[in-house]
Amino acid sequence: MKEQDLFPLLEGYNNISIFTHVRPDGDAIGSSLAWAKALIMLGKNVEIYCPDVIPERYSFLPGYERFQDQFLPHKKEKLLAFVLDCSDLARLEYMESQMSQVEKIVNIDHHITNECFGDHNLVKTSAAATAEIIFQLIQENNLELDQEISLSLYAAISSDTGSFRYKNTTPQTMRIAALLLENGVNPYLVSEKLFDELSLNKLLLLREALYTLKVDEKHQVAWMSMKESTVRKYNASPAELEGFVNYAKNIKNMDIGVFFYHGNDGETKVGLRSKNSDVARMASYFGGGGHPLAAGCTVKGRAGQVEKKVLKIIREAL
Amino acid sequence: MKEQDLFPLLEGYNNISIFTHVRPDGDAIGSSLAWAKALIMLGKNVEIYCPDVIPERYSFLPGYERFQDQFLPHKKEKLLAFVLDCSDLARLEYMESQMSQVEKIVNIDHHITNECFGDHNLVKTSAAATAEIIFQLIQENNLELDQEISLSLYAAISSDTGSFRYKNTTPQTMRIAALLLENGVNPYLVSEKLFDELSLNKLLLLREALYTLKVDEKHQVAWMSMKESTVRKYNASPAELEGFVNYAKNIKNMDIGVFFYHGNDGETKVGLRSKNSDVARMASYFGGGGHPLAAGCTVKGRAGQVEKKVLKIIREAL
Repeated sequence: MKEQDLFPLLEGYNNISIFTHVRPDGDAIGSSLAWAKALIMLGKNVEIYCPDVIPERYSFLPGYERFQDQFLPHKKEKLLAFVLDCSDLARLEYMESQMSQVEKIVNIDHHITNECFGDHNLVKTSAAATAEIIFQLIQENNLELDQEISLSLYAAISSDTGSFRYKNTTPQTMRIAALLLENGVNPYLVSEKLFDELSLNKLLLLREALYTLKVDEKHQVAWMSMKESTVRKYNASPAELEGFVNYAKNIKNMDIGVFFYHGNDGETKVGLRSKNSDVARMASYFGGGGHPLAAGCTVKGRAGQVEKKVLKIIREAL
Repeated sequence: MKEQDLFPLLEGYNNISIFTHVRPDGDAIGSSLAWAKALIMLGKNVEIYCPDVIPERYSFLPGYERFQDQFLPHKKEKLLAFVLDCSDLARLEYMESQMSQVEKIVNIDHHITNECFGDHNLVKTSAAATAEIIFQLIQENNLELDQEISLSLYAAISSDTGSFRYKNTTPQTMRIAALLLENGVNPYLVSEKLFDELSLNKLLLLREALYTLKVDEKHQVAWMSMKESTVRKYNASPAELEGFVNYAKNIKNMDIGVFFYHGNDGETKVGLRSKNSDVARMASYFGGGGHPLAAGCTVKGRAGQVEKKVLKIIREAL
């Protein structure tokens, strides 16, 4: 499907539902809100669905409150669905089974693993974010790109590129960002909301994690650990531990960072990050997987034993 | 002075010295290296001076080793000097007095406080970084923009905008970044070097600092402290404490973050950051100053007393 083919398709539908994936990130949320607003300005009835609750940190995005986590399809009229930022329909979790009530599915995504599950597929793996594709859709079809849409798209792109820091950032990403800033987006506000804001719990847990920091200079491995009971002590969520593994990985002269989360159930979730080594291969030894530089696995056993075993495999694999 | 007027000026000089400021940041270093390379490709003899040693984290920038911290002017021929990223000549510290040996000074800067001290002044306060002005100089004069120059300029811009996060980021900043990426710059490499890399000492000091974290929810103030003796215990430099104050400021629902560094000499250096309040005004009460959202002061007295006094002033000023 090409961007220009979209407009004729839209003409046949008054009711449109937008779906995005479980554990939604900035791109999932921002792309959905931007595309919803563009369609609403065309006079469409638009609903937005996500199988998870949208994290409160995204509440600065206009339309945030429109997300619904229960899919209640329009019954009277035929329904067009856009599925955004999903490599496959399983990313919609329980909503997947309800997609049969939809007449046509348009799949818009940038993941290289996309299964082209839609009736129409607009998959561009060169795009840093799904929001880049939405931007092009809006431009190619001469839809209005107002300040609200610009803010949602900018937040989505900034989120998926780590504020233009990751490898997926291209000249095109920068040119789109320039146009969105010209529409009145404040880059400082976006980055403050997306990247700077810390919960007090997160800082207190970071302090606990740093107290466990250990470094193996010879093998360039650094690791930290945390027990589930510690997280409970602060009445916090394990989601607050996101990113801690990077503190270990980012230490100068270290190659690999490991984070052990010892659950009360006798299972340890192991997060692995690397600057240069294939940690997915190491994770696969324990039945886990991921990307070469970011992987994970779950290992049963006593906390100390698990740490020893995982570190042994890492040292041997290097 | 306009960009196009530069070329005729350059024709009169074979020997060119580039100067940048004490405690050089990424913009100072990247702009100087980029401009030096552009002039070398024009066949000039170029020296680069900075009154401080260049931090090792910038060693990935091509030409890094060319920086000299002793100004030894060419004696035989007349000398043209470019002073980059300096609001006044005092930023050159002990090198300032030696500027009398220079025939002409070209002042290139983006700071609003620039004193236009040069024989020629190219001061653009709308530029996010001095590197943006260097980019325009290179473009307007049709000089070659090779991959090395592009890398230095990109690092400079990324550094001064916090990877396109600060308020100074403009559409023009993004458009320049797009062109630099097209020249083969790897944004991931730059951000890894500039933003991600942590020293082990920094993490260990962060752990110590987090142990002192206190929060006043009513007044939305959070603070941390550290003694000089703690820094010495780790054989670390106080420079490692840079940015710690932001952890306090970035806590959700907090407005002001404070960091107290208690020196062995009975003086406390106080760093103040805010999301919304004018902390420069608070710092000025103690003879300090800065920007509204980022300020500092030095206060004499016993550690506990100083903390009490400063927090009292903050609470009263709110």
